[in-house]
Amino acid sequence: MAVSVGILGATGYTGAELLRLIHLHPEARVTFCSSRQHNGKRLDEVHDFLRGTTDIVLEDFDEDEISRRCDVVFSCLPHGASMDFVSRIAGRVKVVDLSADFRIKDVSVYRAWYQDHTCPDLIQDAVYGLCEIYRDKIRGASLVANPGCYPTSVLLPLVPLVREGVVDKDDIIVDSKSGVSGAGRGVSLRTHICEVGESFSAYKAGRSHRHIPEMEQELSHAAGREVTIAFTPHLLPISRGMLSTIYVVTRSDEAELKDCLRTAYDGSPFVRVVDGQPATKDVRGTNRCLIGVVKHPSSRRAVITSAIDNLTKGASGQAVQCMNLMFGLDESAGLDALCLFP
Amino acid sequence: MAVSVGILGATGYTGAELLRLIHLHPEARVTFCSSRQHNGKRLDEVHDFLRGTTDIVLEDFDEDEISRRCDVVFSCLPHGASMDFVSRIAGRVKVVDLSADFRIKDVSVYRAWYQDHTCPDLIQDAVYGLCEIYRDKIRGASLVANPGCYPTSVLLPLVPLVREGVVDKDDIIVDSKSGVSGAGRGVSLRTHICEVGESFSAYKAGRSHRHIPEMEQELSHAAGREVTIAFTPHLLPISRGMLSTIYVVTRSDEAELKDCLRTAYDGSPFVRVVDGQPATKDVRGTNRCLIGVVKHPSSRRAVITSAIDNLTKGASGQAVQCMNLMFGLDESAGLDALCLFP
Amino acid sequence: MAVSVGILGATGYTGAELLRLIHLHPEARVTFCSSRQHNGKRLDEVHDFLRGTTDIVLEDFDEDEISRRCDVVFSCLPHGASMDFVSRIAGRVKVVDLSADFRIKDVSVYRAWYQDHTCPDLIQDAVYGLCEIYRDKIRGASLVANPGCYPTSVLLPLVPLVREGVVDKDDIIVDSKSGVSGAGRGVSLRTHICEVGESFSAYKAGRSHRHIPEMEQELSHAAGREVTIAFTPHLLPISRGMLSTIYVVTRSDEAELKDCLRTAYDGSPFVRVVDGQPATKDVRGTNRCLIGVVKHPSSRRAVITSAIDNLTKGASGQAVQCMNLMFGLDESAGLDALCLFP
Amino acid sequence: MAVSVGILGATGYTGAELLRLIHLHPEARVTFCSSRQHNGKRLDEVHDFLRGTTDIVLEDFDEDEISRRCDVVFSCLPHGASMDFVSRIAGRVKVVDLSADFRIKDVSVYRAWYQDHTCPDLIQDAVYGLCEIYRDKIRGASLVANPGCYPTSVLLPLVPLVREGVVDKDDIIVDSKSGVSGAGRGVSLRTHICEVGESFSAYKAGRSHRHIPEMEQELSHAAGREVTIAFTPHLLPISRGMLSTIYVVTRSDEAELKDCLRTAYDGSPFVRVVDGQPATKDVRGTNRCLIGVVKHPSSRRAVITSAIDNLTKGASGQAVQCMNLMFGLDESAGLDALCLFP
Repeated sequence: MAVSVGILGATGYTGAELLRLIHLHPEARVTFCSSRQHNGKRLDEVHDFLRGTTDIVLEDFDEDEISRRCDVVFSCLPHGASMDFVSRIAGRVKVVDLSADFRIKDVSVYRAWYQDHTCPDLIQDAVYGLCEIYRDKIRGASLVANPGCYPTSVLLPLVPLVREGVVDKDDIIVDSKSGVSGAGRGVSLRTHICEVGESFSAYKAGRSHRHIPEMEQELSHAAGREVTIAFTPHLLPISRGMLSTIYVVTRSDEAELKDCLRTAYDGSPFVRVVDGQPATKDVRGTNRCLIGVVKHPSSRRAVITSAIDNLTKGASGQAVQCMNLMFGLDESAGLDALCLFP
Repeated sequence: MAVSVGILGATGYTGAELLRLIHLHPEARVTFCSSRQHNGKRLDEVHDFLRGTTDIVLEDFDEDEISRRCDVVFSCLPHGASMDFVSRIAGRVKVVDLSADFRIKDVSVYRAWYQDHTCPDLIQDAVYGLCEIYRDKIRGASLVANPGCYPTSVLLPLVPLVREGVVDKDDIIVDSKSGVSGAGRGVSLRTHICEVGESFSAYKAGRSHRHIPEMEQELSHAAGREVTIAFTPHLLPISRGMLSTIYVVTRSDEAELKDCLRTAYDGSPFVRVVDGQPATKDVRGTNRCLIGVVKHPSSRRAVITSAIDNLTKGASGQAVQCMNLMFGLDESAGLDALCLFP
Repeated sequence: MAVSVGILGATGYTGAELLRLIHLHPEARVTFCSSRQHNGKRLDEVHDFLRGTTDIVLEDFDEDEISRRCDVVFSCLPHGASMDFVSRIAGRVKVVDLSADFRIKDVSVYRAWYQDHTCPDLIQDAVYGLCEIYRDKIRGASLVANPGCYPTSVLLPLVPLVREGVVDKDDIIVDSKSGVSGAGRGVSLRTHICEVGESFSAYKAGRSHRHIPEMEQELSHAAGREVTIAFTPHLLPISRGMLSTIYVVTRSDEAELKDCLRTAYDGSPFVRVVDGQPATKDVRGTNRCLIGVVKHPSSRRAVITSAIDNLTKGASGQAVQCMNLMFGLDESAGLDALCLFP
Repeated sequence: MAVSVGILGATGYTGAELLRLIHLHPEARVTFCSSRQHNGKRLDEVHDFLRGTTDIVLEDFDEDEISRRCDVVFSCLPHGASMDFVSRIAGRVKVVDLSADFRIKDVSVYRAWYQDHTCPDLIQDAVYGLCEIYRDKIRGASLVANPGCYPTSVLLPLVPLVREGVVDKDDIIVDSKSGVSGAGRGVSLRTHICEVGESFSAYKAGRSHRHIPEMEQELSHAAGREVTIAFTPHLLPISRGMLSTIYVVTRSDEAELKDCLRTAYDGSPFVRVVDGQPATKDVRGTNRCLIGVVKHPSSRRAVITSAIDNLTKGASGQAVQCMNLMFGLDESAGLDALCLFP
């Protein structure tokens, strides 16, 4: 019997990506969709690309209706808004929350970086949905906090190295670059093609991006003590794709670093250490994370690059991967399509 | 039992697209790949996006081996080269040829627009693979000449209108725009991102593009008499996507034209008449053709726009659709994934 | 003595382009700038690219102040808003209005396509600012209605052919493609890079784009009787650039058509008939219009392509060209920089 | 009297950019152009964007002719090829060499990173053309080695900080991103729009890019002792633009770092420390370098971002700036045009 899926916030980019992935999924189907602005409309009125492929109508949020019709709900609502809706269905259906609301375990940290939290008790029930790291916990979870896109691209290469103690925990620099879809479907001058196309810049440099506490929480957990990082995000003039370039100090050589990562991800179908440097085009539309490692013999630093699609492994693909684990399905179900290339 | 698929010319863009589509196909698998330059290499050495997803090695063309291992062969070789290889396997396995070599029924026309033809006898056996028009013939074909990308985007909206006699057959203007992947993976100044990105131009204007005889052959066939068209292709600074804007003179109104097309494509899962104008983003990575029709009451002309992905419905997707028909499979098998959006 | 220039609406894209061009101009300088939203701010707070190059502060509109400080005012305000401001300074300073408010001579046509007109008397004083056609009138004008971008790209190739009677006046089809900057700096889903980048579509097909009456007015004037055209605009995924592909029926051959255009533009420094087809990259950032003409001997139709930069010759560059004429300066002053390539 | 300019390698992107800049220059004009492939052709046959703007014909290299007709020669030839031509004219005319051939003072380092050097004696005569650092030396130079694009974007922010001793000289990390025009006009799969557009990746990570010795030479010179850096270049899917993100360890706070840079560049018209982070769009087509500095109080690291146009300040613009200094002209002559925006 197929898993019945509800989507809150189905009209944004992560919602659209979920629709695409569930459509491909052999054991899941969408049974409920809502949005904050468009309820009452047909979904294909909001997303032209769906015309002729779906009869779904966007409905008002109704917890009884959702409980009746869904086995799992994905919340694609923005942080702050998501927790209110999630708290009304948590315990009645399984939930994968793509917002930041349940990622930060220390509510005072959440408050410092985001805002007040209206249901802090739920935080402790939530499992951080980085599948390759918390696979077993996710299997038993009823509420999953799906990781942010930057954290996914950074933690996958770093957690094993920090956990095994092969890199200096006090000297980690992360230079990340994201496609514009990470900024969402809302309109603003910073998503205007004339402003952001054919351009490139950093933004929120200097310890101001909200994904920092999430990354530091997980790195600290892996290290067994507090870890802080330097993190600079940048905006790429493309829709999809994220690349993080990570500088670590280590006594291990390149082969040892690669071995450490390959051992950690043996059996993980989506993470792969490659020769050379991965490109975002090699993961477009897939749930994969490709990792490159270079260390020059004369240097104490290694350079690690990791490429993901920010909407797939960085958001909706990982959410489906979590669902697969939560329902005892094959971890790759619905997620093994090849890259769209070119 | 899955259909066993061979691909000649697997390292170009139409080859890559076939690999992507067959990978998704529930009843087909790739059993042989060759290229003209890279035989002996692993396929994922030539296509980075395949790293870790395939063990296929590019092999030399060997007709016995191909006959033994393949039920169907897709030739992604360029015109001129393709006919030589196809003629060596035709009759032993089914063939879908993506080149122009078997599309033109009148060999003197082929010679005038292309070059000499080395196996003209085979041309008459070939069925033109525009599935929505020649569905039944394709079912029984052993050699299919897969249509060109421009012809697909032009013939789908025009054939029913011409066949039904609702448009003036002597006054058809086609203004088409294609993404750069249509020019193939070969390197040249005209595919250099600094020359073609952030730019737009026509090329081969004025009765010089080689897809003209193919379009005129099919339109003449539909009309029952000779039809010529004005055709201007343009190059878009995007990878994938093709849009044709077609101007026809007609006494029918907008609703009648839409009705004519909807009737023609009732039961055709990939062709859809939409309200408004379709965008190439709405078909990216899909086998769909979306058609918009506008006719102002004061005008004797209607404007028809049709959007396809030049690599999917315009090439490899249509080839898979042909294969489905040739092997009695569901016409949509492997081709019903949703668009990659954004 | 340099010409003193005021700019109303200096914070949009045509305003920014005027600032760039006046900066290069040997005989003009900016002495007043206003906007509707940002008055009181420094101009370089609104346009990052100006940081460190200007001390201009955006001021409230004040007709006395403007008359005192400006020889000419460019209005970059949107249609509807522009006429109110222009009517308050017309007669006191020279004005080049980049909006549509004074382009349409027949106020009932303006009302039908746009809205009510608050100062219809001024319309008759306005000279249509297509310099190559109305050069002498512009020299003596105090109010110039700067042409729209689509009309500029269409009228430059068509007016001489229509005027000389070498093309059929009842069978003109115009298929135009514009970069996104033509839609302005306002935010909306249709300028979001994820929606419009890597895509292409027609919009306002079928006699609905507001530049149609402007084109038909000028073509009718050139023809000496009413001319209507079929016009379909499309949106290109680039910032700057416009290409119009024009289909005309003619008994003249390609050489005669080129001769007609070359004769018409002899002495016009910015219009040039080229061999082959022009690309928008060849005019980026320049005031040039490049025209290609192709006619196959077997066809009664010719295909004409014209390329301009929609912000330069299609808007602000042409406005500066008008200013040059109005003040007796060299027509090319400030406008002879080469293309930014690549 | 205008400076007479010769250009070797006029058909590539740095050659085209020189033509654009000299065209704007009030006191220079081009009197000789050559290329390696196209001699005998008109320049506007090779560069479509020049059609109708120039009568220059590409000529064979002839040292006597060059000496007679040029005051200065810019060599845009690739490294290895450039030194042979430069050595034949050095001493007879002033030379600005845009290749790497005369940048590295230690010929053994040049040999290790590049190839053998055929005229090592000339190296010592060459002045490194980073105008803001070597302004006085350039004024008296007859041979200038124009800096590489990456070094320009990295040295401008770093040299003052290293020279003043405010950053740790043993812990400098540089993460740079370049537009594709930096790879030149040669055709290859890595400049194919379908391969590099809508993608992003690092390349030559781990101490393998040839600009490293050039940066280390200059940083070591500024520091008074050997400095090594970690450097990772990346390829952006845009034509023009370069952004370097630089991580330094320092006891100074953000204001002190900005002060240090502002003091160093007081009187330098092209370098500017800005609030926030600069974007490459803010320098497109200009000779400017914009620098942003962020340091969080809790961190020992500062993040510095610098934006240039790789073809202008990163190549041809800087070369013209050098020429201005060498001929006693205003340093900004021909270089003060505003950014092309959008």
